[in-house]
Amino acid sequence: MCQLLGMNCNTPTDIVFSFTGFATRGGLTDHHRDGWGIAFFEGSGVRTFVDHQAAVDSPVAELIKRYPIKSQHVIAHIRKATQGRVTLANCHPFVRELWGRYWVFAHNGDLKNFTPELDGPYRPVGTTDSELAFCYILQEMRKRFGHTLPLLAELRAALREIVDHIAGHGTFNMLLSDGSALYTHCSTHLYYIVRQHPFATAKLSDDDLSVDFSEVTTSNDRVAVIVTQPLTDNEVWTQYQSGEMKVFVDGAVVE
Amino acid sequence: MCQLLGMNCNTPTDIVFSFTGFATRGGLTDHHRDGWGIAFFEGSGVRTFVDHQAAVDSPVAELIKRYPIKSQHVIAHIRKATQGRVTLANCHPFVRELWGRYWVFAHNGDLKNFTPELDGPYRPVGTTDSELAFCYILQEMRKRFGHTLPLLAELRAALREIVDHIAGHGTFNMLLSDGSALYTHCSTHLYYIVRQHPFATAKLSDDDLSVDFSEVTTSNDRVAVIVTQPLTDNEVWTQYQSGEMKVFVDGAVVE
Repeated sequence: MCQLLGMNCNTPTDIVFSFTGFATRGGLTDHHRDGWGIAFFEGSGVRTFVDHQAAVDSPVAELIKRYPIKSQHVIAHIRKATQGRVTLANCHPFVRELWGRYWVFAHNGDLKNFTPELDGPYRPVGTTDSELAFCYILQEMRKRFGHTLPLLAELRAALREIVDHIAGHGTFNMLLSDGSALYTHCSTHLYYIVRQHPFATAKLSDDDLSVDFSEVTTSNDRVAVIVTQPLTDNEVWTQYQSGEMKVFVDGAVVE
Repeated sequence: MCQLLGMNCNTPTDIVFSFTGFATRGGLTDHHRDGWGIAFFEGSGVRTFVDHQAAVDSPVAELIKRYPIKSQHVIAHIRKATQGRVTLANCHPFVRELWGRYWVFAHNGDLKNFTPELDGPYRPVGTTDSELAFCYILQEMRKRFGHTLPLLAELRAALREIVDHIAGHGTFNMLLSDGSALYTHCSTHLYYIVRQHPFATAKLSDDDLSVDFSEVTTSNDRVAVIVTQPLTDNEVWTQYQSGEMKVFVDGAVVE
């Protein structure tokens, strides 16, 4: 199984702290050695780094730990191959364009007998069930809403149906973002935390590193972090229910 | 105007030497300070780095100069904004998927009164004429060939027509690749060189750096480099004619 990390904020925030703990799982404290990737939205643009080296060995991961790219929407993934070879084309997150927006997607889990007909413009480049599911999601959203970006509530309702169909084929923990919202779904394990004023000190579980967020934030900042396993051991993470879908905007859950 | 750099090889080759000279033009020996980007194919996968900082200041560009990513198809771009703001979404190269392949595109030039109707699945995310032209190319290729990747000769003939239409609106020097061939078009200035056995020493025009390619190659290697301005001052570069299109496969021009 793979590991997922998502971040959604109301102000551009760097992910150095969380990524440091997360990347450690890519080969050092955990066995996810089959590549990794991270995508940062900056406005409508997206910056994606993928590598089929283990995150713990990767010079690109090292760069990200040292170079604080600020973003309101981040999706990262460390891969333990279940389906598909260890190649760059199989590294998450995947990126496609729909409605003049980039969509970024990462998946944890394994789908069985999932062979949707892809009759639209989205085709997998690699051989993972994950990229296939992503192409299917975009195709179905485009079928429902045509050429026009729908309202968030409409999109969320459509996504609920599409994701339920996919999740019927196996484990489908996923993160999806178009740079305006972060859509998340849990089949088996996903946790989130919303950090906001008053900020406290957090300590990584996987690394000997602490950060006092009150020193690097303003009282208006709000940051949601979503992960397959909690990253810190002195904070309270909320566990998703199985089948739960949550949408984050500006660092908060949209009810 | 911007600068373009393309590489097409018969064996995965690193671009450290050429990129070093090329990146120097991003703010140091030239005035292209409005961002840069580079995309490397690795098999069918693609690794893209974009930055809206000048290449000469960018820690990501620094990483690429030190980290020899090997690829058979590389497209790089340094931007001097003519249309569209300096944002990440406006940085070349642009990437989209068609026929289960990633397509990578970069453009040098300026298009006037180019307002094609985009009725297909490809829409620009940013505001450049370049990304608009790229979306138009993919839309028109998809219209002609439907769901199936055509033969290279068919694709080239179609691209010739599509590119002629675009180039009728202004300057359209471009590089386009799907990871199997590199398609190039010159409106005003584009040069190429094919390096092959017996390899010699090349010296960068923009930087005090030489490399003896005979020490880092085998006698079977063949590498084509395509640029808007020659990168070395002791080699013979072939200048394109205006309106010329050339397709490179395995480091050689396909006649």
